[in-house]
Amino acid sequence: MTRWFKLTIAYDGREFEGWQRQKTKRTVQYELEKALARLLGKHTTLLASGRTDAGVHALGQVVSFDAETHHSTETIRRALCNYLPDDIAILRVQEMAGQFRSVADSIRKRYRYVLQDGQKRDVFARHYAWHSWRELNVELMREAAQALWGTHDFVAFEGSGSRRVGTVRTIYDLTVERIADPHFRRVHIEVEADGFLYNMVRNIVGTLVDVGCGRRPVTHAATALASKDRIQAGMTAPPQGLYLLWVLCREPGEIEPRMDV
Amino acid sequence: MTRWFKLTIAYDGREFEGWQRQKTKRTVQYELEKALARLLGKHTTLLASGRTDAGVHALGQVVSFDAETHHSTETIRRALCNYLPDDIAILRVQEMAGQFRSVADSIRKRYRYVLQDGQKRDVFARHYAWHSWRELNVELMREAAQALWGTHDFVAFEGSGSRRVGTVRTIYDLTVERIADPHFRRVHIEVEADGFLYNMVRNIVGTLVDVGCGRRPVTHAATALASKDRIQAGMTAPPQGLYLLWVLCREPGEIEPRMDV
Repeated sequence: MTRWFKLTIAYDGREFEGWQRQKTKRTVQYELEKALARLLGKHTTLLASGRTDAGVHALGQVVSFDAETHHSTETIRRALCNYLPDDIAILRVQEMAGQFRSVADSIRKRYRYVLQDGQKRDVFARHYAWHSWRELNVELMREAAQALWGTHDFVAFEGSGSRRVGTVRTIYDLTVERIADPHFRRVHIEVEADGFLYNMVRNIVGTLVDVGCGRRPVTHAATALASKDRIQAGMTAPPQGLYLLWVLCREPGEIEPRMDV
Repeated sequence: MTRWFKLTIAYDGREFEGWQRQKTKRTVQYELEKALARLLGKHTTLLASGRTDAGVHALGQVVSFDAETHHSTETIRRALCNYLPDDIAILRVQEMAGQFRSVADSIRKRYRYVLQDGQKRDVFARHYAWHSWRELNVELMREAAQALWGTHDFVAFEGSGSRRVGTVRTIYDLTVERIADPHFRRVHIEVEADGFLYNMVRNIVGTLVDVGCGRRPVTHAATALASKDRIQAGMTAPPQGLYLLWVLCREPGEIEPRMDV
């Protein structure tokens, strides 16, 4: 009998060429499928709620698969923990009461982008934040960001090479916060939406950083959005500052965990 | 006229084969000397207060060099900041009033070792901490550590391959603290001494972790110390959890910074 599983996982994107399996490259999907094959004895394809690019991190990515197996969710969790390299962590394994596909069923996601600004540079942030020598004005960035809240055609913030048809999305939350850190200046930008176009968060961040540095006026994000022209928005922020925080899915309900059957 | 300089630097040890220049490998000394040569127009040898091994980090390493140059300390700082890769940061450049060699003149140092324990593993700690699946008992580790305070022959904690003559050192402080972190269990061990034998901190940490896991009794550190036998102490903890925090030097006094001359 086919059973449906949902994995919640975290990974440090630094040494991965992104989520998606590729022929000769180390990817999160490849490592996870290899570990799962060791447990199940056969290849099983995993689906993520969204592909992350090379260097992008996840604190709560959601992945689905179906399998005919007698293993309990706890056995699956322990086995994957044992087999996986230590830059992927399994946070939770759940069994769903019906068909579940994390891609099709994801309805809301939240990302964080980490910036480190100023002359005092954190050497440990090299692969975990984007550094700006110029100090960022968080109030201006916050004001600029307000234009992006709500339902809009975000085509100006879509990365090239995308093949999506619709480009209208709804941003439910978009915050810019300076983080209290005694050692280094840090800023977090968080974006929550019903879905994201390719590179949308990184293009929004690039646009807001232009404002925060004083390179562009506070109206820059609004102007870019209205233009529907990719050229008008800021540069694509580099991948290493981006973290997928969580994914909310439309779910068929969870089956209570039980012992191995 | 020869001038004497003191640099205080930080580095993420992850992508370095340690401090010391080696033929074909990326080291901190190599990168720093390359940057300095670009500024001074000739090769200048740098001396660190102590060599760090591959993978070991520094938050306050002290480095010295002498040069005949007209540049101000601020010009040197800015130039090195520009030329260096972003896993090395220059925290301070000072000019000394007389001969200064960070190796010979260092009189006290402090290291931190970062542990992450328990079933919930932080994927971002892979190269920045040592993970233990077993939860650590900090009280037992602290009790075990007390035997090491003060002046002792630490030969049992010396790594093999060392050619030092004297093995007596004085530990002024040795703390074991659980860190308040809402997401992951972390423990910091900090050791301050007048000097360290090769791998001494990592061998002390290995010994204390044996106690904290319950693999060895609380008297383990005292027994190992008294035995003067390397075999009696614990394993050498891996390099990625180790951070050189600061170095105190006997100094000839600082020359007031001035403009380029």
